[in-house]
Amino acid sequence: MKSEGGAHRAVTMRDVAQAAGVSVSTVSHVVNDTGARIGADARERVRRAIDELGYRPNAMAKNLVKGSSRFIGLVADAIASTPFAGQIIHGAQDEAWQHGYVLLVANTEGNAPAEASALSMMWEHKVRGILYSTWYHRAVDLPEGLVEPDTVLVNCYSDRRPLPAVVPNERSGGRDATRMLLEQGHQRVAFLNTSTPSPARDGRHEGYRQALRAAKLPYDPALVVDVQPDQEGGYSAVDRVVASGASAVFCHNDRVAMGLYDGLRERGLRIPDDLSVVGFDNQEVIAAHLRPALSTVALPHYELGRRGVRVLLGLDKPKGSEPMAVDCPSVPRSSISRPSER
Amino acid sequence: MKSEGGAHRAVTMRDVAQAAGVSVSTVSHVVNDTGARIGADARERVRRAIDELGYRPNAMAKNLVKGSSRFIGLVADAIASTPFAGQIIHGAQDEAWQHGYVLLVANTEGNAPAEASALSMMWEHKVRGILYSTWYHRAVDLPEGLVEPDTVLVNCYSDRRPLPAVVPNERSGGRDATRMLLEQGHQRVAFLNTSTPSPARDGRHEGYRQALRAAKLPYDPALVVDVQPDQEGGYSAVDRVVASGASAVFCHNDRVAMGLYDGLRERGLRIPDDLSVVGFDNQEVIAAHLRPALSTVALPHYELGRRGVRVLLGLDKPKGSEPMAVDCPSVPRSSISRPSER
Repeated sequence: MKSEGGAHRAVTMRDVAQAAGVSVSTVSHVVNDTGARIGADARERVRRAIDELGYRPNAMAKNLVKGSSRFIGLVADAIASTPFAGQIIHGAQDEAWQHGYVLLVANTEGNAPAEASALSMMWEHKVRGILYSTWYHRAVDLPEGLVEPDTVLVNCYSDRRPLPAVVPNERSGGRDATRMLLEQGHQRVAFLNTSTPSPARDGRHEGYRQALRAAKLPYDPALVVDVQPDQEGGYSAVDRVVASGASAVFCHNDRVAMGLYDGLRERGLRIPDDLSVVGFDNQEVIAAHLRPALSTVALPHYELGRRGVRVLLGLDKPKGSEPMAVDCPSVPRSSISRPSER
Repeated sequence: MKSEGGAHRAVTMRDVAQAAGVSVSTVSHVVNDTGARIGADARERVRRAIDELGYRPNAMAKNLVKGSSRFIGLVADAIASTPFAGQIIHGAQDEAWQHGYVLLVANTEGNAPAEASALSMMWEHKVRGILYSTWYHRAVDLPEGLVEPDTVLVNCYSDRRPLPAVVPNERSGGRDATRMLLEQGHQRVAFLNTSTPSPARDGRHEGYRQALRAAKLPYDPALVVDVQPDQEGGYSAVDRVVASGASAVFCHNDRVAMGLYDGLRERGLRIPDDLSVVGFDNQEVIAAHLRPALSTVALPHYELGRRGVRVLLGLDKPKGSEPMAVDCPSVPRSSISRPSER
């Protein structure tokens, strides 16, 4: 018989699952007696594996002995002000649970002392690793407490430290948004980009140019207007959009599109009859509920969270030193039509 | 010198308590620096015992010994689709950290197996207690795994089990929203309420009636219209609002107000010149960014989370068996003016 310490170090819920030929979540249901419907046969195999391997199902006892826990830490900077962080958490949790890990979530609201507390709390609980996430895609200056290995950046990246990162593919998103308009026959497509320097600004702009190039249309800088990335920004650009002679507009995000809708309506212009509009983000309470419902591309926050956990656990690997880029799916609705005859 | 494993196994908080001649909870207060009043003499004996025995206050080691941890569990049902759950988490976390607790957050998206996993995960980690929260205020059928004591319901309540609960004060919120309109001199105030049975529907309706009564105005059922509680619902009610002769409208939520804005604009009516509007929720990406910016009352999600933790830790006590009701602050913006002369 092995020593107690040795046995503990060896046996995990995953070992039981493998020995019993079932999923980790099945083992968890049996061990925790959750009332889930598990077949008598599988239940019996799990019980036998537990006995044979000497598995002891106490989360914290295991953590102590193994020196690392079944926790994954997730630090989020804006969980209280947007649903984006929630979607990252949702994706990360689903993937973590599938592999027998629990998420320790800490919300910092961008506050440095809260971040320091969050990180020290996580290390104190001997997390397997940390996902460090931001609500909008950006470069980050990493805090002191964030040490390699076992840190994955989600929706952000570091220029100084070569940490693995998972980010949205802004370029292909911008290309697909523009292409939704070009495919309907639009030739003059305005682009209301954000005035804030960011990977979203550069990537979506590059995607816009790529789509024009692929359609053999010229790039006209007069069609590109930088605005504040919210409703007020979209509203403020209406005159320039109308003056540009564009028949369609790609908006940096759904909030800009919402402001543009208001401005166009005040001038008696109809969407999509007079002007087609596409957004970006697929923001929950806005995009589907504008009149007409807004065609857009979705930021893949759920998938970013999921992939972050997979990279942390070594199940997915970013190629080379570049961040792993996740595609932004197109969400067609009712704000795009063929250009009107003028 | 003892072997490392032996030392870890041997020294517990209970050992320290025995050596110092104090209770385990006294040791815990000293170790965690909780601010509890412990006499200088006892404190000194604990410190000496810790040194002599080589006790190492490791978060998880403590949990094992005490049988309960420095975790508080928070179950949320819609963290990925609204910012509301995030605000509850933010408030709960701030309060928990202040008392040396860490939040274990689990997102269920309203899914029963996910909820069962979340609860068993939390009990496995020996949480001090659980906050069970919903994204909109409602009665809940509590899952099996949710046992007393040490459960607090946040933004929900149970008709069957007398668990402590913290909820928004829908009645005073509805009263204050209506009063914002009455104070400007409006005498015919329409109310677009939700068609979905809920405490928000009943409470805000009662608040609306209270405000009318206090202003000695009659209650006219023709002014109360039930709609789907989103943009589409507000848009659909425009004809009835106009036909009612109301000079002001209290909307069940900000999304209803947003749809009403669209419909009024299409009929050439201006807000607030032709019609004053007030919402409910103060929803982040909507309320401040409508044209004109929407006056509303805020759902106090941050405060609900904070109070939930305080009730769980015994720092606040609901009076009697009723849920603790938290006020909804008024947020005046630009969608209300005096009624126009007609």
